[in-house]
Amino acid sequence: MPEALQALVVGAGPAGMTAGVYLARAQIGALVLSQDIGGQAAWGPEIKNYLGYRVISGVELVNRFYEHLSSFPQVRQEFAQVKQVVRQDDGRFLVTADGTKYLAEAVVYAAGRSPRKLHVPGETEYLGLGVSYCPVCDGPLFPGKRVAVAGGGNSGFAAAVQMCSIASHVTVIEVADQVPAAADYQRRLAREPKAEMLTATRIVEILGDQGGMTGLRVENVHTGEQRELEVQGLFVEIGSEPNSGPVADLVKLTATGEIEVTPDCKTSVPGLFAAGDVTNVPEKQIIVAAGEGAKAALSAVDYLLRKG
Amino acid sequence: MPEALQALVVGAGPAGMTAGVYLARAQIGALVLSQDIGGQAAWGPEIKNYLGYRVISGVELVNRFYEHLSSFPQVRQEFAQVKQVVRQDDGRFLVTADGTKYLAEAVVYAAGRSPRKLHVPGETEYLGLGVSYCPVCDGPLFPGKRVAVAGGGNSGFAAAVQMCSIASHVTVIEVADQVPAAADYQRRLAREPKAEMLTATRIVEILGDQGGMTGLRVENVHTGEQRELEVQGLFVEIGSEPNSGPVADLVKLTATGEIEVTPDCKTSVPGLFAAGDVTNVPEKQIIVAAGEGAKAALSAVDYLLRKG
Repeated sequence: MPEALQALVVGAGPAGMTAGVYLARAQIGALVLSQDIGGQAAWGPEIKNYLGYRVISGVELVNRFYEHLSSFPQVRQEFAQVKQVVRQDDGRFLVTADGTKYLAEAVVYAAGRSPRKLHVPGETEYLGLGVSYCPVCDGPLFPGKRVAVAGGGNSGFAAAVQMCSIASHVTVIEVADQVPAAADYQRRLAREPKAEMLTATRIVEILGDQGGMTGLRVENVHTGEQRELEVQGLFVEIGSEPNSGPVADLVKLTATGEIEVTPDCKTSVPGLFAAGDVTNVPEKQIIVAAGEGAKAALSAVDYLLRKG
Repeated sequence: MPEALQALVVGAGPAGMTAGVYLARAQIGALVLSQDIGGQAAWGPEIKNYLGYRVISGVELVNRFYEHLSSFPQVRQEFAQVKQVVRQDDGRFLVTADGTKYLAEAVVYAAGRSPRKLHVPGETEYLGLGVSYCPVCDGPLFPGKRVAVAGGGNSGFAAAVQMCSIASHVTVIEVADQVPAAADYQRRLAREPKAEMLTATRIVEILGDQGGMTGLRVENVHTGEQRELEVQGLFVEIGSEPNSGPVADLVKLTATGEIEVTPDCKTSVPGLFAAGDVTNVPEKQIIVAAGEGAKAALSAVDYLLRKG
């Protein structure tokens, strides 16, 4: 028998944790299921726009959030990857997370976003052995090494600038002919003697051996000419996508896979509420996600009260 | 000549202060005009649902917010009451605050809500001399005194419970026959020997002399019979109303006077953005208002960039 819950929260980023706090305060027994604590909020080196904290690292801010959530005995948190959410005929939600199943009267879905992948050979194999999606988390593991950054947008340039203070050489690889990063990012990186820029270049394979990643095979997008770069690390910074897969068959999504929500965080399915970066809320910001998490939880509380 | 600004923020509650932080981070020169710091957020005795702070008083949380806002040199804050916002033919906003006028390219209106007034003789005269709209702020001024609370809803009962630990006697006065407060609030107050409940009773006048308030004249709503109550304090807890007066002729309001906003905090007027409790956003919560303030500011930044 699956465990029966009043409310299940998927995700423990700012939206999911705020939802947990609000459900606990309303005396709703809730479980927060998540793969990690904080989601992408934990990756910020220096956060200056969460009202109430002048300057704080993502990791520390997320720790404060988690301490806050953990102070409520009404809500518990477990680590698991949610695979699927199905609505039963009785209106309850059957949630499959890794091997375990849960039955919840209401779900607050706040699973956030994940970095977009290159989808090239070696990417999965060398994950954590050279391949990273988080320069703030993993950058310090590459002192004096040669690294590459995939993606010439603002986040790619920010990663490259950061890595110039750690690595011996940094190559930014952009598939387009023109660099999409903002002019001030480009000026900033141009001052770094360790940095090199490759445009019109595609990564086709990540190379390595038992010791980890050793290089990249890249291709000129116009000539098709290939060559190998000797790098020990690769930071993939080519955007992100909403983690809406587990509810994709259930709920209305936008063309880009975001969950459509009303201003009070209802979805197209009664009893299923959504908040944060997985939704079509226009701004992906920590304080916005937290506010949305509160709204989703309060809508869920209202739904549960009316249901009786 | 009125001072010319890129952006003017009206209100320094959670929404207005977050808007100020986001405008500053976007290098927009902004002025935050407000009558106070924190608005109604400062009135909470114990706040447990602002993510990142387990338990904090409203005053202390608001101080953290203000320290944060003040850390940005791009934004300044001044105390003034905004009287009117008018859109000029050139698209700029002429904002009149007390005697001073400002011209702003964009306005973020986050003026919050104010307590609803009784509108009876003596209410204005004895404001601060017995009449209060904030038990948390003013309650400690009545040790051992007899006080009344106008309003038998949840906030009235919460005020009454609080005052039972300070005053010698507390009378709750409700105009309806039935007490609207939730059952648990009613049970809690029933345990207080100092508390007394009057239903079907209307306050018709606030009495006093040069030393301040001395009593109330109340009336039975069925019989019309009047009598005087000897109390030195009155806490008015009969709800709140949005401070939308200064933009009422400019922007689309709901039937209850709230400013209608889109999910990205646009109003019916280009260049005028709104956030927080003055809007029709469904939940009046500190964390929600803060998130809305961020959205309003980012929409204003986008508007200013497009305008050039």
